[in-house]
Amino acid sequence: MVNSRFSSDTRAVVLTVSDRCSRGEKVDESGPAVARLLKAAGVDAVQTRLLPDEMDAIITALRHYARDAQLIVTTGGTGLAARDVTPDATRLVCERLVDGLAERMRAEGLEHTPFAPLSRAVCGISGTTLIVNLPGSPAGAESSLAAILSLLPHALDLLAGKTEHPGKTAKDRERKGR
Amino acid sequence: MVNSRFSSDTRAVVLTVSDRCSRGEKVDESGPAVARLLKAAGVDAVQTRLLPDEMDAIITALRHYARDAQLIVTTGGTGLAARDVTPDATRLVCERLVDGLAERMRAEGLEHTPFAPLSRAVCGISGTTLIVNLPGSPAGAESSLAAILSLLPHALDLLAGKTEHPGKTAKDRERKGR
Amino acid sequence: MVNSRFSSDTRAVVLTVSDRCSRGEKVDESGPAVARLLKAAGVDAVQTRLLPDEMDAIITALRHYARDAQLIVTTGGTGLAARDVTPDATRLVCERLVDGLAERMRAEGLEHTPFAPLSRAVCGISGTTLIVNLPGSPAGAESSLAAILSLLPHALDLLAGKTEHPGKTAKDRERKGR
Repeated sequence: MVNSRFSSDTRAVVLTVSDRCSRGEKVDESGPAVARLLKAAGVDAVQTRLLPDEMDAIITALRHYARDAQLIVTTGGTGLAARDVTPDATRLVCERLVDGLAERMRAEGLEHTPFAPLSRAVCGISGTTLIVNLPGSPAGAESSLAAILSLLPHALDLLAGKTEHPGKTAKDRERKGR
Repeated sequence: MVNSRFSSDTRAVVLTVSDRCSRGEKVDESGPAVARLLKAAGVDAVQTRLLPDEMDAIITALRHYARDAQLIVTTGGTGLAARDVTPDATRLVCERLVDGLAERMRAEGLEHTPFAPLSRAVCGISGTTLIVNLPGSPAGAESSLAAILSLLPHALDLLAGKTEHPGKTAKDRERKGR
Repeated sequence: MVNSRFSSDTRAVVLTVSDRCSRGEKVDESGPAVARLLKAAGVDAVQTRLLPDEMDAIITALRHYARDAQLIVTTGGTGLAARDVTPDATRLVCERLVDGLAERMRAEGLEHTPFAPLSRAVCGISGTTLIVNLPGSPAGAESSLAAILSLLPHALDLLAGKTEHPGKTAKDRERKGR
């Protein structure tokens, strides 16, 4: 059986990457919105933090939280502006990329905005921690996360060493039966 | 409001990457076709140039034109043949990639040809210049560019520091209203 | 005309990457399933081999078989578990990536399983050899390969220097006729 709920000991961190929010010039709506979605999906321990759009600060934070959290979700800094460097910091921290999650968020994003292809969000793995980039707007962050949320409990299971493949039993049993 | 027209001072360069065209053995139809599309979309200053399928020549040209142009569009050299190296040169010149634009061109390309997945085109950012690879055939170049053309004025705005997010006002106002 | 059948002298290698299969703890069903699909598509010379999920062993095998085979298809090691490193080994061996093939396999994979985005499979070129990663489950490997199989004869033609573009004659003739 594939896990469709997060296990009760899942620790997640939501990093809002925004110059204006980190300077207190703007209220962060995206971070709390993402945290609410994660909690509603069964993640009890969700920590949030604000960061400026600084490559070094993002890398340091990703490495720091990857030591303990199973899931790090960033919001912001995925666009084309000069200071949008969250995906680039994420690439540097991750040993392995999960291109399909980013593709899926953008494909689903087209249902909401024609500008979805301009999100440079990446997803990847640092050690045994999954890092997911989301766009900075609350609507974009929520719809992107919603597009892949049901895949994350199984993704974290695989990273934790529970490597039974989804649908293997069912599908392969079916294969043998024909 | 999101910009759907290029600003009047946009400078674009179209690079046709083709051994045969650059040697004069074949007439370049793709470069002019791409230039026509850009002009019809409101880009007045469109320069065109022919290049051979040489990694060094492509890198040098991309770096040269990125000093002044906001948009560089290449056509050709995106395939699997040994001398098709335009995407690889583009990756080397760009500090930041925009995977979503390349994904979108290929997804849309499937409407025209089942071979669209074989385009290795990438899109990325060098400094404040957006670089877009298109396939070499006139039909492929035109349909690929058409798939993303409406996104480019806003993309160039973001690169120029006009960082208001698309739909932010409308969508987020709606969010607050509920 | 675009080739839709493999040429009769095509040499393919199927590498099953699996700790359990390579230790003899599990029967490899995926490798033989992939080999059958290739043979049914007209590839007479299909060699199969088992490998553990070891980065070095995969890299060595990819380089070894790339000296002679036009096509290497791997199955297994594309997931998120700690020992899933086939895509990462493939990236290291390939000078040029073909992102569109991996995108296509995942997009098509969604028809079969919602977990298709978790496949980290990549496709790329080492010298004149095309390397394609497939998931490890027999069902996943078969459906992923089926999604791109019809493109592979033309892809191998391009790699072999037969660079006539698909649909060029037909489409471009049509263009000129209008």
